[in-house]
Amino acid sequence: MSTKPPSGTRDFLPEEIRRREYVVRVVREVYESYGFEPLETPAFENIETLLGKYGEEGNKLIFKILKRGEHEASGEADLALRYDLTVPLARVVAQYQNELPRFFKRYQIQPVWRADRPARGRFREFYQCDIDAIGSTSPVVEAELLAAVSDVLGRLRFESFEIRLNHRRALTALLECAGVPEALHAEALIALDKLDKVGADGVLKELLARGVGDTAAQAALAFFAGTKEVTDAAEGLDRLQHFVRGSDAGRAATEDLRSILALTAGTRAHGRIRIDPSLARGLSYYTGAIMEIAVPDLAGSLGGGGRYDNLVGMFLGRDVPACGFSLGLERIIVVMTERDMFPAKVSTGAVDVMVTFLTNGLRADALKLASELRAGKLRVEVYPEVSPKLEKPLKYASGRNVPVLAILGEDEQARGEVTVRDLQTRKQEAAPRATAADWIAKRVRIS
Amino acid sequence: MSTKPPSGTRDFLPEEIRRREYVVRVVREVYESYGFEPLETPAFENIETLLGKYGEEGNKLIFKILKRGEHEASGEADLALRYDLTVPLARVVAQYQNELPRFFKRYQIQPVWRADRPARGRFREFYQCDIDAIGSTSPVVEAELLAAVSDVLGRLRFESFEIRLNHRRALTALLECAGVPEALHAEALIALDKLDKVGADGVLKELLARGVGDTAAQAALAFFAGTKEVTDAAEGLDRLQHFVRGSDAGRAATEDLRSILALTAGTRAHGRIRIDPSLARGLSYYTGAIMEIAVPDLAGSLGGGGRYDNLVGMFLGRDVPACGFSLGLERIIVVMTERDMFPAKVSTGAVDVMVTFLTNGLRADALKLASELRAGKLRVEVYPEVSPKLEKPLKYASGRNVPVLAILGEDEQARGEVTVRDLQTRKQEAAPRATAADWIAKRVRIS
Repeated sequence: MSTKPPSGTRDFLPEEIRRREYVVRVVREVYESYGFEPLETPAFENIETLLGKYGEEGNKLIFKILKRGEHEASGEADLALRYDLTVPLARVVAQYQNELPRFFKRYQIQPVWRADRPARGRFREFYQCDIDAIGSTSPVVEAELLAAVSDVLGRLRFESFEIRLNHRRALTALLECAGVPEALHAEALIALDKLDKVGADGVLKELLARGVGDTAAQAALAFFAGTKEVTDAAEGLDRLQHFVRGSDAGRAATEDLRSILALTAGTRAHGRIRIDPSLARGLSYYTGAIMEIAVPDLAGSLGGGGRYDNLVGMFLGRDVPACGFSLGLERIIVVMTERDMFPAKVSTGAVDVMVTFLTNGLRADALKLASELRAGKLRVEVYPEVSPKLEKPLKYASGRNVPVLAILGEDEQARGEVTVRDLQTRKQEAAPRATAADWIAKRVRIS
Repeated sequence: MSTKPPSGTRDFLPEEIRRREYVVRVVREVYESYGFEPLETPAFENIETLLGKYGEEGNKLIFKILKRGEHEASGEADLALRYDLTVPLARVVAQYQNELPRFFKRYQIQPVWRADRPARGRFREFYQCDIDAIGSTSPVVEAELLAAVSDVLGRLRFESFEIRLNHRRALTALLECAGVPEALHAEALIALDKLDKVGADGVLKELLARGVGDTAAQAALAFFAGTKEVTDAAEGLDRLQHFVRGSDAGRAATEDLRSILALTAGTRAHGRIRIDPSLARGLSYYTGAIMEIAVPDLAGSLGGGGRYDNLVGMFLGRDVPACGFSLGLERIIVVMTERDMFPAKVSTGAVDVMVTFLTNGLRADALKLASELRAGKLRVEVYPEVSPKLEKPLKYASGRNVPVLAILGEDEQARGEVTVRDLQTRKQEAAPRATAADWIAKRVRIS
């Protein structure tokens, strides 16, 4: 029988967990400093809660759970594994509407499951990290989400990142003003998105092939091609506003973006935002601002989000204003690992000192010594077996990246001392029991 | 459609999560201070990994996942949700045998799923918290597990708890010496376990009914009844040792217990241990010491464990020494909630200060103020909507348990100040922007 984890899933051994937890801790600390609160929902939902919410393609990727007991033989499913964190949020908002605060700001960091074909970097079990503010239409919400994600990336030491900002209704207005009929908006965006890859001529050809008229195609293309060099947000916004000036919705949308830009001025998002009129992020989902985070030399994004005012109310039967951001946690961890961005302490060993005893009569005292050292805030492992020679404990400690060995022999015990050996420099000395913790702490903090 | 979570599962709203996370943090910090490291495995396993590992009853309680795509119609399952954390550990030990340290000390805190009939306090999705040390037969391992769990309970402020300690082979020897045939050991233990409930006469009747002979029943009963008053561990051990003196295995087992007792002398487990010869914890599973934690006025335990040297190697095809402890995380949280044992900070609000602005022109500055306050390590929420009157923000802040309101009006802005209001005393004063964070921090730390 195979002892590998199931296809598309992973076991996380300690070193990997330390990296994951470091990122999660930063994310949580930052979002909590903005007043976001944690939410957790069950791994599975009643199947009817999930079915029909993710389109036909999504339906096929849902893991379904067989009925139990006498109903198992029916082959029917009544439960299904969580496919994302948005539908559970919508259910929670409906279920606890009288208990939740008027502005419900929640983050949720939990795994989701999708029966995708596994591939490099694509898993069937992966963590999503969703941050949503429910209940307000104020652009303060968008600005805070951008400020918070900028704080997160700053704390994780992503030196240069860019926030791409657009607006769902500005995008619609833009295509309208270019003369693209609404029915072709989705098609046009697919073509326009390839500008970097296939160049202006390629996009023009594709726009025409997808049924966009020549004048409209030229107009849209000219606008999009021209925006690529504009990195200043205010300038980009002026350019967009000018193009959509004939549309009421377009003017309102660009005013909205102008508010968001102004509101981020005093935050860490300042100077990071670029207006990107080509940003679409799934046309149908969002109703207002849309945003995405990019870092240099990385295809794709580290996360994205936007305002989606008609989704969270799906179980309530009425619209509920919502604006959210989904951080690409798995992606961030991969990039930080590849680029060696973790602080040294994250990748050093889990133990500060290992206690080893030379005779069996010293075992109890070795455990007492370990307790004393723990009282000094050290992480202490006891080598569990008697080791008259140090060979085995030394080999084990080196494999575990332990910096200090505390050796307890009968001589040491008689003198009320312990021999502390720095496993890097191989220097060792006798330390009084009372000060051994300090000695080791000093050694460990320096390294 | 119902918006409740599926039967037997729970949504965790922020306040509940804060309680859960407090407990988990203490558990992790303590176990890490003993050199235990985190492990995480996927929510589901290949179905053949789980089937047949939990007996016939267990098999029925496993949540099975339907095959996907074209195979869905077959009604067959190929995956199943994790039922415990021990079988995944055994799989991990086999899969990564060349990467794991010789002594693999891991903790794993993850949900498991069982299709039990839901009842008060019994869930279909619940967290297990398993701590296991793999690879050594030394009693140092048992002693460290007992020391660590005592540290956990101490840090969680369980003032009085008792560790019940027994030994699988001592128990066998004990029944043998009483004259109970091995085939009836399990039956006899079921009867003897009811001593507190049905009294000596009741147990005797039941022993006879279950086929134990009169002499053996009397002997076993006399021993068990006599142990109830012995609280001193050394005395209890002497008594046990005397009873099993005719059995080699019994003598070895009591020597083992004696070592464990001696080894805990310098740790926080000292004085907590009682030898409980009736402790069985599922006869078939353990091979050495067995232990369980009890607190006054609580039926059942807060956790238990022991040595089980032939289980973790199930996928390796050879015995692997192992000793583990499973903390009853869900139970601990319930007891601590009922007994109001959480520190005040755990149940106070998630936000230190809420910023509110009196005109829309002040929005950007309000966000800037929030950034300044966050730089002073405060958790800051911004009331997202303009509030010329304070009525709504005050009501909202009170519902969220926010201690301080920071009010930004045009006068305040002109003077470089902010009005800070203590929402408990209702006192307010103008504070310079530069020192506002300090003012609030002082107010918040005091409360």
